Order: sequence, then C-alpha cells, then structure tokens
Amino acid sequence: MPRVVVDVMLKPEILDPQGQAVANALPRLGVTDVSSVRIGRRIEIEFTGQPDLDRAREIADKLLANPVIEDFSVRVADAGHAGESNP
Amino acid sequence: MPRVVVDVMLKPEILDPQGQAVANALPRLGVTDVSSVRIGRRIEIEFTGQPDLDRAREIADKLLANPVIEDFSVRVADAGHAGESNP
Repeated sequence: MPRVVVDVMLKPEILDPQGQAVANALPRLGVTDVSSVRIGRRIEIEFTGQPDLDRAREIADKLLANPVIEDFSVRVADAGHAGESNP
Repeated sequence: MPRVVVDVMLKPEILDPQGQAVANALPRLGVTDVSSVRIGRRIEIEFTGQPDLDRAREIADKLLANPVIEDFSVRVADAGHAGESNP
C-alpha cells in the first residue's frame, strides 16, 4: 500500500522537556554516552491511490505540525512497517 | 553529530484514535484519497561518540516503547535534521 511518512520534530531552538526527561533517566539505565534526546511525532498516511507528496505536505502544514515551533519532513515510505526490525 | 532515530508506532492491530481523528478531519480539507492515518513517535538520540544501535535498542525497549502495544525500529540517521525538507 502506498504510504507517506511525515516526521514532525520541534525546531532545534525549542526546548523539549519530554526528551530531556528521557535523557535524564538514562544514567539510571547505565547509559552515559548520550548527549541529547529529542522526541517528535511520526505520522503514516496511507493513500488509496498513488502517494501524493504535495497533498501530504499540505496536510502536515495545516493539521499535523505547528509551524511556529515545529519542522516537518515528508517522504514516501518503503512498504515495510516501522516495527519490522523490532527484535 | 552521530544520531540514532527510533520510530515507535502502535502495532497494526491496536486502534489509533488520534490518527482516526486526523483521518476524519481530512474531508473538511478537501482530501478524500487517504485511507488511513497512524500517529506514532520519532525519537532522535544523539551519542557523544559512535552511534550505538544496540544501546539505542535497549533504551527504546526499556524507556521509549511499550512492547505490549507498540513496535519500534532503530536506525542510524543521516546528518540532516527532520525539518530540512520543510518548504
């Protein structure tokens, strides 16, 4: 099924308290070589016909991202599901 | 800076009300050729040294994803930021 993936991340200059909380928890797991964690959203849009990048970009801009504080990127995904490399 | 991206998505059999809400809003934007929208998380982990996929997988499993309802995938990202293709 044709699928478009929209990645939405906070702009680099915007604080990310959720990511910071994860980063602060890492030493308790014994992880000390991580310098930063940023948490955003990944949206998968399935089209009934051909995947339409311009249409997806319009959806992202109007509905999925807040362009004041977030950046987004749009791309056609390979067929596999995100979880396929899950151990 | 070396960076690992963790994509966390609900398992396909789990209902996604947030994605459903977006899908239901699309006809109001004039979009009628979308069959499904799924919303997950994208986490960017920056390492101080070499990106460590096994370490990132451990972080994802223990801290970022709920393996009962979510799948995740881990990969090394190219240097660019998610927002670079933002129009």
